[in-house]
Amino acid sequence: MPRIVMKFGGTSMAGIERIRSVADRVKREAQAGNQVLVVVSAMAGETDRLVQLCNDAAALHDSKEYDVVVASGEQVTAGLLAMTLQNMGVAARSFMGWQLLRASGAHGNARVEAVAGELLVQALEDGTVAVIPGFQGVSDEGRLATLGRGGSDTSAVAIAAGVKADRCDIYTDVDGVYTTDPRIVPSAQKLNQITFEEMLELAGVGAKVLQVRSVGLAMRAKLPLRVLSAFDDLPGTEIVPQLGENMERNAIAGIAAERNEARITLTGILDRPGMVSAVIGPLAAAGIQIDMIVHSATEGVGESDLTFTLPRASAAQAAAVIEPLKQALGYQALLTDLAVAKVSIVGVGIRSNPALAATMFATLATSRINLLAVSASEIKVSVLVAEDEMELAVRVLHSAFGLDAPQGN
Amino acid sequence: MPRIVMKFGGTSMAGIERIRSVADRVKREAQAGNQVLVVVSAMAGETDRLVQLCNDAAALHDSKEYDVVVASGEQVTAGLLAMTLQNMGVAARSFMGWQLLRASGAHGNARVEAVAGELLVQALEDGTVAVIPGFQGVSDEGRLATLGRGGSDTSAVAIAAGVKADRCDIYTDVDGVYTTDPRIVPSAQKLNQITFEEMLELAGVGAKVLQVRSVGLAMRAKLPLRVLSAFDDLPGTEIVPQLGENMERNAIAGIAAERNEARITLTGILDRPGMVSAVIGPLAAAGIQIDMIVHSATEGVGESDLTFTLPRASAAQAAAVIEPLKQALGYQALLTDLAVAKVSIVGVGIRSNPALAATMFATLATSRINLLAVSASEIKVSVLVAEDEMELAVRVLHSAFGLDAPQGN
Repeated sequence: MPRIVMKFGGTSMAGIERIRSVADRVKREAQAGNQVLVVVSAMAGETDRLVQLCNDAAALHDSKEYDVVVASGEQVTAGLLAMTLQNMGVAARSFMGWQLLRASGAHGNARVEAVAGELLVQALEDGTVAVIPGFQGVSDEGRLATLGRGGSDTSAVAIAAGVKADRCDIYTDVDGVYTTDPRIVPSAQKLNQITFEEMLELAGVGAKVLQVRSVGLAMRAKLPLRVLSAFDDLPGTEIVPQLGENMERNAIAGIAAERNEARITLTGILDRPGMVSAVIGPLAAAGIQIDMIVHSATEGVGESDLTFTLPRASAAQAAAVIEPLKQALGYQALLTDLAVAKVSIVGVGIRSNPALAATMFATLATSRINLLAVSASEIKVSVLVAEDEMELAVRVLHSAFGLDAPQGN
Repeated sequence: MPRIVMKFGGTSMAGIERIRSVADRVKREAQAGNQVLVVVSAMAGETDRLVQLCNDAAALHDSKEYDVVVASGEQVTAGLLAMTLQNMGVAARSFMGWQLLRASGAHGNARVEAVAGELLVQALEDGTVAVIPGFQGVSDEGRLATLGRGGSDTSAVAIAAGVKADRCDIYTDVDGVYTTDPRIVPSAQKLNQITFEEMLELAGVGAKVLQVRSVGLAMRAKLPLRVLSAFDDLPGTEIVPQLGENMERNAIAGIAAERNEARITLTGILDRPGMVSAVIGPLAAAGIQIDMIVHSATEGVGESDLTFTLPRASAAQAAAVIEPLKQALGYQALLTDLAVAKVSIVGVGIRSNPALAATMFATLATSRINLLAVSASEIKVSVLVAEDEMELAVRVLHSAFGLDAPQGN
């Protein structure tokens, strides 16, 4: 008997009418002969309300007490969904996070350590639908611990892995993963399939359909995911270890765009061994994540420019870390540019086809878009551009890689 | 070091400002050298909101899932109070009901079985204020279980007993226990002291300051209670095993009035052995609680009237139980009177002074109030009167027993 996890986001749990329509969907899956576990978010807006209460109580508050307060939202929806299912004649019961999901690490942003799968499997084998509040578990100390905003996706995947489910379906308010942000490119197309790696790269650069941690967890567990709309009956997007054999998908899965980037350039820096790490080391020590690094040495001169990119929100802090080191590092000026953005092509095809990167650069050149930096990984090529050229870059790349038309399969 | 439990009701927890003023009070007790445990209710209105969600989800719902939903309200206020205390420099942490209070019996109305006192004592001895959501614990099955509406009082007393506290203070939106309902007698006086027995009798007949179960529990544990206002600094009412030696309190603690009574009379019933139990037995089997029973036999005639009183809400059901038995019981008519009320004098003085009951009857007679039934226990004398004479009865008794003046001590 197939075993599936269904996860529903806050929009689908917002009020009794919507919970009833979630229950309808769950009932259909159960009646179709599946063993079903359901992971639920709090009602839309509820977690924000609870976070606000914590902030009002104390601007700086204990994350253990924060967890106690915010975990209540999913507890409510889990109980309500279980009783709604029972009312529809579906055997169901709720389990609390503290009864089955052990978490460790920082409160408010804990990691899943273990799932009491046997408890759930027993309920499933008795023909009961298990309803579980997302986003929470219990710490080693025996206290409530939450997994960070969006953590219900991670709960769902961890529970699916813990019960060796055949599939985890993430129901949300979009109907799948798109080739790019439809607000930038109205002709953006829904993808039928995407690999875990591609999804990680797209999520990491700003496609916010799923919590990134949940994708990594599913990839390690080799657990197929689906992203589907909670509000219609379309097939959604499958997230899989490898593209299906018959998959005639484009080599590029999508174009990601990230606006909140900044670029810092140290001009005229003395070009000696260890210079890059002398700059990056103190930043890392201050917890600042660096993304691209460009070191443009001019041969024979012994001086060069060092440019790196980082999240815009960290730019001021980074400058404050580096400026006191001006003499030690021996640079001339520190220039901060906050009006930059990152545009990436992502696709497993990049690994085997270097021409794709060339197509990217040629396309951007034709549109006279200046590349401020370039970086590449196995399945992604990213460029830094002026922020006001970002949308144009996304549009021309989206066309050039054939993403404006419906995606195959 | 004195160890005290402070319990705060929903009105005192309604919003961050009020939680802050609760925290101020807790801080004062902690700084005065007490070990402090705090038991909190949900914000005023929150439990009603959660109950409504359950009713909307399913008119008939599983009480285990109901418990999951409604228990969340106190969880939120416990976390918020703990972080507010920390923010004021008071070491504090929350404990969840499932971490320390074992409950059994019907979900939605469970009984306290045991409290993990050692966990709490350890925190107290580390100088930490323990904050605990009222109204909830964990069942033998390991599921959330709630103690019934008003159950936070019972939680507080059970926890106080579990940690061998010196005292349990119940902070509420009234400033103590009164000699009678001030809406009926504006000169009703606050009592400085009342015994457990008296409080049980007053609560049982309609003085709704404390959940009755909590008083019974405190009495068995010999745990002194205080009822105090959360909104001022008056001394409140002490509830104690025995009145203090120097206590010059009135022999009568108060006058209780219960409006929602009904009277059923079976006229011309055949007066034979076992007749009363033939009537009462089927009612008890149907779960209907009978209060007073009056059997007025007319000597030699062999026929009599049997009158009993019961909660007004049960009257129709009681008639439906008895009417089919008309032939078997051999009565002439079943008369239901819904316009009756019960008025009681309550006081430990009654035990040693039979003149008090005589005073009661004489006072009512002087006011031409007709007594429909009378019953008495060790510390209480109750009369059934026409509902439209209830308030007059309360007022004249309140005066006659000297309760209009401030109560001694």
